[in-house]
Amino acid sequence: METNKRPLILITNDDGYFAPGLKVLIDMVKPYGDVVVVAPEQGVSGMSHAITIKFPLRVTKLESEEGVEIFKVNGTPVDCVKIALNQLLDRRPDILVSGINHGSNSSISVIYSGTMGGAIEGSLNEIPSIGYSLCSHSMNADFSVAKKHGESIFKKVLANGLPKYTCLNVNFPVVSEDDFKGVKVCRQARGVWKEEYEKRIDPHNGTYYWLTGSFNNHENGATDTDEWALANNFASIVPVRNDFTDFDSLDKITNLNSIK
Amino acid sequence: METNKRPLILITNDDGYFAPGLKVLIDMVKPYGDVVVVAPEQGVSGMSHAITIKFPLRVTKLESEEGVEIFKVNGTPVDCVKIALNQLLDRRPDILVSGINHGSNSSISVIYSGTMGGAIEGSLNEIPSIGYSLCSHSMNADFSVAKKHGESIFKKVLANGLPKYTCLNVNFPVVSEDDFKGVKVCRQARGVWKEEYEKRIDPHNGTYYWLTGSFNNHENGATDTDEWALANNFASIVPVRNDFTDFDSLDKITNLNSIK
Repeated sequence: METNKRPLILITNDDGYFAPGLKVLIDMVKPYGDVVVVAPEQGVSGMSHAITIKFPLRVTKLESEEGVEIFKVNGTPVDCVKIALNQLLDRRPDILVSGINHGSNSSISVIYSGTMGGAIEGSLNEIPSIGYSLCSHSMNADFSVAKKHGESIFKKVLANGLPKYTCLNVNFPVVSEDDFKGVKVCRQARGVWKEEYEKRIDPHNGTYYWLTGSFNNHENGATDTDEWALANNFASIVPVRNDFTDFDSLDKITNLNSIK
Repeated sequence: METNKRPLILITNDDGYFAPGLKVLIDMVKPYGDVVVVAPEQGVSGMSHAITIKFPLRVTKLESEEGVEIFKVNGTPVDCVKIALNQLLDRRPDILVSGINHGSNSSISVIYSGTMGGAIEGSLNEIPSIGYSLCSHSMNADFSVAKKHGESIFKKVLANGLPKYTCLNVNFPVVSEDDFKGVKVCRQARGVWKEEYEKRIDPHNGTYYWLTGSFNNHENGATDTDEWALANNFASIVPVRNDFTDFDSLDKITNLNSIK
């Protein structure tokens, strides 16, 4: 970091460029470098690692202030990161932060999360990357604990980096500073979202279905998971990898080999 | 499998219900059970594990033949699997197959792939699941090798299951049966897509960007990867997990703990 240039900090999110959580993140990191925000023009929660192939992207530069440039893009968080790296930035970012998401991305929610899609795309490109989420969907949520302790995490990662190809999935509980217990590195809890589609009839007698559901934690006993940390007033940090290989299974499916 | 009922086989894909690769997959598996296809109404390549939250899903049942029912859905492959399990099926599928995708999903393409999103969603729900892809985007591609050897893989998985929460990412090279070398269990190659957005000007003087890019294999020397297998006329099978925790990094980021 001891160069002539200030660190370049790339920010994205999945709630859109106007989201309160994004503004908190900008305020949190702007003392540490030059900030470029490239964020979706609308909320795109649940977009995972999706990319836009069938229509072209449009980029609009919004008003910028000293040290902070903001672009909006008609795409996903992964699109935002890709077009930032390829078209919008004049140098490589030193760090990428995504969020602060309005809503939890702990346990298996990581796989559906656009916030984490953006962070993972950063790590694929060997940029130290952090996805931040607060366990509240409210637009008026109190981000003060997330901002204070998220900043500590950010400073450490900016100074020390992260293991190559690894990003962080950081989730904050909704608690006061007094009740907050600290930050805990942990593993992803095993769990699943169980859907319960709500079936409705439209005014033209057509049937449609709204996605609803609830999270099922499959390991309520374990104390080393992100779900346990959050339920016990800790922030959770899960290191996230982008190699999908299930190395434990490689030896268990050798019956599928059939070399001619 | 020795019950009164034939196995229930759930099929999805990301190229849409009309794709030739889907028809090959139906023909491949229908001798083995009752088939229900729940597939996107249009091509949704690159949708990863995205889910549809902001608009409701519509389901249309298409004509069905003996032992094969087909539904189309205005959503992603993951939506198709979720609504199949929650609304459309009257019993739990014994196996899920996704594809056959028109185009490779090897290496890091697994993270962008809607085909694999569908398969991974199956494995989250503890259904043995296989995503199949052929390394050709042509709508007229020759699926004969993929069908013949994909069927062998399918039969083994139907008989033996898979490790819990693990699905298979199966990719076939475009080769003749004579040149085909066999099926090889392997790991995901480390690689990255490097974007090169193509910038254009529309008739109204607006700027837009098309996503283009090329795959960079970061480990050309390794012989235990899916990329090596495919380049050497093998089909690749990578066991895929849905726990994103980077266990190797847990010990390396303990400096981020800060327990009050």
